[in-house]
Amino acid sequence: QRQPSLGKAACIITGASRGFGRSLALLLAPQLEAGSILFLVARSRGALAELEAKLQCSFPGLTVNSVPADLGTEDGVQLVLQVVLHKLLGAADLQRLLIINNAGSLGDISKSFVDFTSAAEVNSYFAFNVTSALCLTSSILKAFPGQPGLCKTVVNVSSLCALKPFKSWTLYCTGKASRDMMFQVLALEEPGVRVINYAPGPLDTEMQQLARTKSGDPEIRQQFLNMKNSGQLVDCSLSAQKLVSLLLEDMFDSGAHVDFYAI
Amino acid sequence: QRQPSLGKAACIITGASRGFGRSLALLLAPQLEAGSILFLVARSRGALAELEAKLQCSFPGLTVNSVPADLGTEDGVQLVLQVVLHKLLGAADLQRLLIINNAGSLGDISKSFVDFTSAAEVNSYFAFNVTSALCLTSSILKAFPGQPGLCKTVVNVSSLCALKPFKSWTLYCTGKASRDMMFQVLALEEPGVRVINYAPGPLDTEMQQLARTKSGDPEIRQQFLNMKNSGQLVDCSLSAQKLVSLLLEDMFDSGAHVDFYAI
Repeated sequence: QRQPSLGKAACIITGASRGFGRSLALLLAPQLEAGSILFLVARSRGALAELEAKLQCSFPGLTVNSVPADLGTEDGVQLVLQVVLHKLLGAADLQRLLIINNAGSLGDISKSFVDFTSAAEVNSYFAFNVTSALCLTSSILKAFPGQPGLCKTVVNVSSLCALKPFKSWTLYCTGKASRDMMFQVLALEEPGVRVINYAPGPLDTEMQQLARTKSGDPEIRQQFLNMKNSGQLVDCSLSAQKLVSLLLEDMFDSGAHVDFYAI
Repeated sequence: QRQPSLGKAACIITGASRGFGRSLALLLAPQLEAGSILFLVARSRGALAELEAKLQCSFPGLTVNSVPADLGTEDGVQLVLQVVLHKLLGAADLQRLLIINNAGSLGDISKSFVDFTSAAEVNSYFAFNVTSALCLTSSILKAFPGQPGLCKTVVNVSSLCALKPFKSWTLYCTGKASRDMMFQVLALEEPGVRVINYAPGPLDTEMQQLARTKSGDPEIRQQFLNMKNSGQLVDCSLSAQKLVSLLLEDMFDSGAHVDFYAI
């Protein structure tokens, strides 16, 4: 096992119960020094508890907290903040604060742009995918400005969809584009915070299974089916490892959009 | 006065009571043939009524409908849709449907990214600035697919902020970036609809006055103050005229972001 190299850290990962978030939690844990605190946020209490137990067993020097919460609701965001801020303010000698905004949903990809006639559905999508990432990040940074020398890093798990429109993916593209811009503003405003918009590639996850079966546009469905069948989908661990390396090397331009395939 | 050249049209303009939307209404009206219907949407009932009277007096061949409504609420969006769809479905021989998503707000620009800790405030911003533009456009296009040969054009009033982050403008940049992407998806999905993301330049409006007095970042405030003092702000009519010319020429790539300064 490698020597820990992210120092004594507090690390918050949203959407940690499965897919990319779970892989990231497993790969980040060995990089954290004893005394670090890892917060695992997701809706699924059972899957989080399982991951917490697994990590706590392998890394007894870490404090692992699962925080089951629905980030689509204001109460859910507040619950996460209560847990995180309470523990952070009691933590001593932290060298690093790492916030990873990974939680996200595809939205109803069976629909076209012209089918999004329900404001409630659209508002609910943005609340979960955009607002929660903003409010969680802002609240933690504001409440925990930290001592001099504390490294603060914010990751936005982005997508090619932040840069390029895809048929049937109105909400996903819109949400990802808005998150990229939002975190670019953070990078500009806060030179003391390192910000990265990381596009993890087409991951072989449940979300990809939805993409190739439920996308309203037949060409998009076929495109993802072909990628699956020809082994072009990316393993979560491989992509998560690239992100961990980026964080360890810490050489990216703050606010940049960095794609899995570009590194 | 020029000959009408947008044909017999139904034209919906949001944020029509002042600034760019009002200028646009005044410049579009003479381009519409007799029998056209113009819908003016905004919150301010008085300013809308005044504009309606002015237009109705100058262009008696048009039917001008003011629709006072708050697009930040689902009821407001539904109210606009009821009025628009009721009249549209009764209209005969329309040659053009023109939806201009101009309504928008700056958000609280006295705040930095780290100050946006209230989910309710952020959700409310997106509801007005993003969701309403999506649901209004989708509902009209869906309910009014139109006869063959009907020209359908959707305008998103965008901004340089859709492409470039600005300090203190978290919500504005985020909202504008998400709208640009959203309408790019529409352009891709619906080749029969002409879509343009038009960035009107730094307009000499009330919004600009807020920008140079209320922006939290002092450099941004000074930058806009300098632009005002040196006469670099753009007159609404001048920018609206460029958009009208773009619509008349109809040569833009659907989905493109077109900037005032680029044409």
